[in-house]
Amino acid sequence: MDTTARLLITCPDRPGIVSAVTAFLYNHGANITALDQHSSDPEGGTFFMRLEFQTPHLDVSRGVLEATFQRAVAERFEMQWRLSYAADVKRVAILVSRHDHALLELLWRAARRELPCEVTQVISNHPDLGEAVGHFGVPFHHVPVTRETKPEAEARILELLGGDTDLVVLARYMQILSGDFVARYPNRIINIHHSFLPAFVGADPYRQAFERGVKLIGATAHYVTEELDQGPIIDQDVLRVSHRHSAAQMKELGMNVERLVLARAVKWHLEDRILVCGNRTVVFA
Amino acid sequence: MDTTARLLITCPDRPGIVSAVTAFLYNHGANITALDQHSSDPEGGTFFMRLEFQTPHLDVSRGVLEATFQRAVAERFEMQWRLSYAADVKRVAILVSRHDHALLELLWRAARRELPCEVTQVISNHPDLGEAVGHFGVPFHHVPVTRETKPEAEARILELLGGDTDLVVLARYMQILSGDFVARYPNRIINIHHSFLPAFVGADPYRQAFERGVKLIGATAHYVTEELDQGPIIDQDVLRVSHRHSAAQMKELGMNVERLVLARAVKWHLEDRILVCGNRTVVFA
Amino acid sequence: MDTTARLLITCPDRPGIVSAVTAFLYNHGANITALDQHSSDPEGGTFFMRLEFQTPHLDVSRGVLEATFQRAVAERFEMQWRLSYAADVKRVAILVSRHDHALLELLWRAARRELPCEVTQVISNHPDLGEAVGHFGVPFHHVPVTRETKPEAEARILELLGGDTDLVVLARYMQILSGDFVARYPNRIINIHHSFLPAFVGADPYRQAFERGVKLIGATAHYVTEELDQGPIIDQDVLRVSHRHSAAQMKELGMNVERLVLARAVKWHLEDRILVCGNRTVVFA
Amino acid sequence: MDTTARLLITCPDRPGIVSAVTAFLYNHGANITALDQHSSDPEGGTFFMRLEFQTPHLDVSRGVLEATFQRAVAERFEMQWRLSYAADVKRVAILVSRHDHALLELLWRAARRELPCEVTQVISNHPDLGEAVGHFGVPFHHVPVTRETKPEAEARILELLGGDTDLVVLARYMQILSGDFVARYPNRIINIHHSFLPAFVGADPYRQAFERGVKLIGATAHYVTEELDQGPIIDQDVLRVSHRHSAAQMKELGMNVERLVLARAVKWHLEDRILVCGNRTVVFA
Repeated sequence: MDTTARLLITCPDRPGIVSAVTAFLYNHGANITALDQHSSDPEGGTFFMRLEFQTPHLDVSRGVLEATFQRAVAERFEMQWRLSYAADVKRVAILVSRHDHALLELLWRAARRELPCEVTQVISNHPDLGEAVGHFGVPFHHVPVTRETKPEAEARILELLGGDTDLVVLARYMQILSGDFVARYPNRIINIHHSFLPAFVGADPYRQAFERGVKLIGATAHYVTEELDQGPIIDQDVLRVSHRHSAAQMKELGMNVERLVLARAVKWHLEDRILVCGNRTVVFA
Repeated sequence: MDTTARLLITCPDRPGIVSAVTAFLYNHGANITALDQHSSDPEGGTFFMRLEFQTPHLDVSRGVLEATFQRAVAERFEMQWRLSYAADVKRVAILVSRHDHALLELLWRAARRELPCEVTQVISNHPDLGEAVGHFGVPFHHVPVTRETKPEAEARILELLGGDTDLVVLARYMQILSGDFVARYPNRIINIHHSFLPAFVGADPYRQAFERGVKLIGATAHYVTEELDQGPIIDQDVLRVSHRHSAAQMKELGMNVERLVLARAVKWHLEDRILVCGNRTVVFA
Repeated sequence: MDTTARLLITCPDRPGIVSAVTAFLYNHGANITALDQHSSDPEGGTFFMRLEFQTPHLDVSRGVLEATFQRAVAERFEMQWRLSYAADVKRVAILVSRHDHALLELLWRAARRELPCEVTQVISNHPDLGEAVGHFGVPFHHVPVTRETKPEAEARILELLGGDTDLVVLARYMQILSGDFVARYPNRIINIHHSFLPAFVGADPYRQAFERGVKLIGATAHYVTEELDQGPIIDQDVLRVSHRHSAAQMKELGMNVERLVLARAVKWHLEDRILVCGNRTVVFA
Repeated sequence: MDTTARLLITCPDRPGIVSAVTAFLYNHGANITALDQHSSDPEGGTFFMRLEFQTPHLDVSRGVLEATFQRAVAERFEMQWRLSYAADVKRVAILVSRHDHALLELLWRAARRELPCEVTQVISNHPDLGEAVGHFGVPFHHVPVTRETKPEAEARILELLGGDTDLVVLARYMQILSGDFVARYPNRIINIHHSFLPAFVGADPYRQAFERGVKLIGATAHYVTEELDQGPIIDQDVLRVSHRHSAAQMKELGMNVERLVLARAVKWHLEDRILVCGNRTVVFA
């Protein structure tokens, strides 16, 4: 059984934070095995910290530890914080439309334990990928969406997600989620989309990128916010292309970048490595 | 003495082009040492070809070869073409403002013969870089530009460039060239600028990129057209950054990408590896 | 139906080759849609060429075309050559032991038609991956190997491969193939293995790489020759690591590089993009 | 004036280290602005930590701080540690033979303040680069080396380095330093050399890499130890090559990788980001 716990903290930067947190944990028997911190600005900036520690020798229960930390440390430094335990395997739901590349990459890695999570279900607005999902022993739900039925569809998806879904991954889900939906999972919905330099707006971006003769195609994984594709960036990557690549080949390569970038972003989320501050992420990878 | 010649061809794609060109060169004693071709579309597309050949056993003079090629091959296939000789070292002028990174990279590589060219002069709207340029034995011209004197300044630059400048490189030249100026050097002015995913418009893009939390910063080298930063892309590259990088560090890293991408683009141009079609490049690198 | 044909040629370099080949094809109604060539040395070197052409307007049958080409062109230039047709989908057998990452990547890409081939069977010296393979509808054969039964096992594998297997892929097959076996599939067995700078010999290379503190881990795909891991390199790639990565994490990342590099190498082979010359490859990618 | 101080610590890992160090600094008025730590193994491993802090509000002098830290913290945890101050600009000597690429990259970055150091001198066993160095206003010393005069040459170099050289950079210095020389600058001599997958031993490695058909060429920067090229790796990087690259072109590209990797390694050293443990580095970049 994995005895790792992770403490994530965001607070106004000022002297003494690291000292107070590490002393607190030390005094309660925690063995700190990783510590990352970042300050957006030593003068009046925001402070971010991630600690990993081992729990076997804790002198108090989880509940007491958390209550004591809040009272003894967090309040004093005006911290936003959360504590998570590797043994509490995160429950992940994947939303997808028809493209299977990102979905299958996640299912594979989850099956191999490269992604420490339980994929509880896959929900799609198309029935196409049901069989592929079935091979992984993961429940598949077909929730059709039309312009008219969108509110009902979202309600149905929320019902399926229930109250215990930790992370929603949009693995090429081609429907725009409502602000209400997004607001229920703040910094807990990850999306993947293609990226280019320069960016292309509108339909068939690979066609546009091809016509512009770009030499790099890429992908961006980000948390979903109300404003489409404008949420905090988690990770990005690119591949080199040339005039030899057709728009179709660029698209194929792009899908391969997408699946790698998405898998990396999801893994970091599952390992509690990402802190969000405004529209930026701090990733302690 | 370098006896390499390079033939660049663009024409409507149809059967028989490669055969006609290679047979022509073969029959005149050329020894083809490299051949690249590309078709934008086998059906009704555009055809691009680059040949390198050795000239010692040519059975005719340059002038006759070219005239015969035009008559015997080029007209039949409606070719746009040009023939260049490595022994005709290209004359390059560099325009720069205050940032020296891209300029010095080019001067170095030219001095080391990594760039096969003669840098005939450096022109700047600021006097700052005169001394650094002097160390390379390259003439430096200070041509100040103000809003009022811009036409005169451009006229002065054109006078300095004279009639025999083959390539103008904007190595962080922060003045926008007029359409008239650009039209005199079609696909012979190369510019470098920073690139991000997504793109940022307006002042201080590194600051914007920092605030958006991008994970990649990059640079794009392109031919200059009338529309600012919209010309055919020659090359692009990126570097990975994280929340640990300040806006200043991103800028420093960005300059290092800029100089590498620019040097690569200039080299390809000097070696006649770039064909332009509409707003795209075909780079036979 | 795909009407693409590909002609691969290796011969001593001398003037007139391109011209002779393209004229021959042109005269028989072939429409050349791609042509790549490479000369190892303009003076006395080896010449490599790959042509793609469309066959619908050929004026002769395949058999006649090939016989005529041999007589009219190939003999004159002492060519080694082969002609292949995209419509003749290549038959691929995958050998694997217990690691599934490379295997599944290939099966998945074949299922998506990213790899233009038919995976006819998977052969393993362990039964573990049978179920995973079954989901793809591909036959799985378990051929155990012990020190004593190795010759019989190889004989059994050869029997399974039959006479019509075009390519054998070792997707982490941990048995060394005999020289006899290898000799039956010259430049038709592709292997993938980890690569580091510097290289590490002996057991548990990721552990060694970790202990040496390497900053890059990589993978190399190559054709199998009698000498272990010394065959012609097809492709290589690396990923950046740091002191933060454990040996186990390096191994996990390494597997992800392996599957990408192997998939790329297999694709190039299937598209007839690879020519082998001595111990080097020319890859017209 | 830069008021940044950096504390580097290596010690056996056990609970309470971070807490003790940060509390100590906090209690003396230090404002910690960066903290990185790494444990090679939570159970019985080695612990590494780097702290950056601001000194203006320290309540004691440097000397007292250091003495107190030794007594109050370091002894208790059996620490090896050092404290350095950004205001004490490091003095760097560069040794070089005839290749100028790595040397000029360092001189240029030092001149731009990208490298926070004073290059006090360049020493070469050849006179060739004297003029280029002169342009940077840096003293150049020609110390010829022959098989017979090697001890005298090393003695002369040591005399030039004097007692206050913080870092020696071998920027393509083609002489092997004696064990005695190396022992005087433990983890303070940085070397750069080419790297390939696989590695090549012996003369003209680019020629060997070319003949083996490698697809990646790279460079490794490392600390120099007695055993040639076997010291702790600081950084590595690679570039992609293909059959189109001649051995000479590979060498040219390799030099460009070398200068970037070396510059990065030197920068990390100057910023006290590197800890050495046995034959590995921990780089808090």
